[in-house]
Amino acid sequence: MPSLIRRVAIVGGTHGNELTGIYLVKKFQQFPHLLHRQSLECMTLLANPEAVAANRRYIDRDLNRCFANEDLSNPALTGYEDRRAKEIAAQLGPKDQPNADAIIDLHSTTANMGLTILPSSKHPFNLRLAAYLNELHPLVRVCCGVKCDRDTPMLRSLSPFGCTIEVGAIAHGVLNADYLQQTEMLVHAILDYLDAMNQGKILPVPPSLTVYQAISSVDYPRNSSGELQAAIHPHLQFKDYEPLCNGEPMFLTFTGESIPYRGETIVYPIFINEAAYYEKKIAMTLTEKQQVRLETM
Amino acid sequence: MPSLIRRVAIVGGTHGNELTGIYLVKKFQQFPHLLHRQSLECMTLLANPEAVAANRRYIDRDLNRCFANEDLSNPALTGYEDRRAKEIAAQLGPKDQPNADAIIDLHSTTANMGLTILPSSKHPFNLRLAAYLNELHPLVRVCCGVKCDRDTPMLRSLSPFGCTIEVGAIAHGVLNADYLQQTEMLVHAILDYLDAMNQGKILPVPPSLTVYQAISSVDYPRNSSGELQAAIHPHLQFKDYEPLCNGEPMFLTFTGESIPYRGETIVYPIFINEAAYYEKKIAMTLTEKQQVRLETM
Repeated sequence: MPSLIRRVAIVGGTHGNELTGIYLVKKFQQFPHLLHRQSLECMTLLANPEAVAANRRYIDRDLNRCFANEDLSNPALTGYEDRRAKEIAAQLGPKDQPNADAIIDLHSTTANMGLTILPSSKHPFNLRLAAYLNELHPLVRVCCGVKCDRDTPMLRSLSPFGCTIEVGAIAHGVLNADYLQQTEMLVHAILDYLDAMNQGKILPVPPSLTVYQAISSVDYPRNSSGELQAAIHPHLQFKDYEPLCNGEPMFLTFTGESIPYRGETIVYPIFINEAAYYEKKIAMTLTEKQQVRLETM
Repeated sequence: MPSLIRRVAIVGGTHGNELTGIYLVKKFQQFPHLLHRQSLECMTLLANPEAVAANRRYIDRDLNRCFANEDLSNPALTGYEDRRAKEIAAQLGPKDQPNADAIIDLHSTTANMGLTILPSSKHPFNLRLAAYLNELHPLVRVCCGVKCDRDTPMLRSLSPFGCTIEVGAIAHGVLNADYLQQTEMLVHAILDYLDAMNQGKILPVPPSLTVYQAISSVDYPRNSSGELQAAIHPHLQFKDYEPLCNGEPMFLTFTGESIPYRGETIVYPIFINEAAYYEKKIAMTLTEKQQVRLETM
């Protein structure tokens, strides 16, 4: 359990075409009083300014995959994002003794993820924070990555505490006023929670939390040259977090055949049809729905 | 009225991140028999292959703004898209005596445009074709640009006959199986119509057609540095083709104020929040709804 959370980094523009976080960080920079809380100090950061200027996810490679320890310490990696990652790690990190006590990294997705919290780890502190947000706003869902508790290459991994906020469906390069407001609301709720905790006030947290635990990802059907042969099936499109059972359609080939999900367990796909994941060979991420008992702190 | 439509060009990938047209053209290239019609010949074209490979709208500038006569004849324009436009004009044009008797250019948009037909001009032939599609599929809407009947810089302007098909809302870089199928269905309906007409068969066309006539475009509120100060208002987001009256909200500023539409006439905004139009300073295009009587041919 962290002693106190004194410095919080609010990060936008880790991906240069996800405008929600970019414009929210710009707003906070223009109106810093919005972030004032009695017991903590906020830093704001536009993580990938060149990609923001170019309105592209990245210039050389995905910045949010540049924060693995071995990459941060590898002087041979000199692309724009690799250099930027080292600068950000110097500012917010290092991982073993970070300058930022908590990091909130603001993202959007073309998948229909609604308001999703991806905790920086499964540390009870992060899960309790996520549960607080879920209790406050029942539309908030909580998702843990496959590597949630190990060294990950995500920016949020610079600090053990905090989360990524992922909202959507939003097309890249587009501002959505609703999601902009809801993301801001979540940032304020997080700061309020941290501020209360710092001051020893107890905010209501339920005894358990539904977590969507990522177990694997599924690529699109491709031919031997790697070309797509199918799209997400219309029955699955925009159905993030809904149960998918053995035999239910996953893909529709360009010649009209349905390709079903085959698996013994019911899964809950997320990041369905995320534009940026075609190149990562991810059509969707499969999760299992888990009920996690929260440790008292 | 054209004598006969013998050569039809089906174009995708004019914008390299609009996957609907790209994958449909690839499908037609793989299965050319799908395009066989008794009285006409189809060419398929991936218009901007470098942008397709880069999964970006364009490399140097928007290819679909490179086809004005003065640009096509300007040897000083040597960017990738300018060179590509000249190649395409040599293949499908020239405008005064085109090789392609008709052009169907396949696009998608992040705006909620459903299935939209943008005729290459208001020539009665094009309007009757659009009316046929609208009769066949009532969800099809027909929209004419401000410069619909003059020299335009769009690829479709290489031939006086044909249209652009614009489908959405689809995020750029994303395949949507539903819209892929519906776009294919529209291409087939167009080819069937042209084939029937070539053979002197009369297909049913209603006596009049609803046309959304573009009258102007509206930019986002910006500060003196050109930075956005507002997003599309949540009440207007995804409401393409719906009536907007004086006083109804258009934008929501980042500080929470609503900015209404001010105008005496009811307008029907389209291309609301198209990602690619932020840089063109277009938040939406305003149209007037017109009832156009169709000339018999």
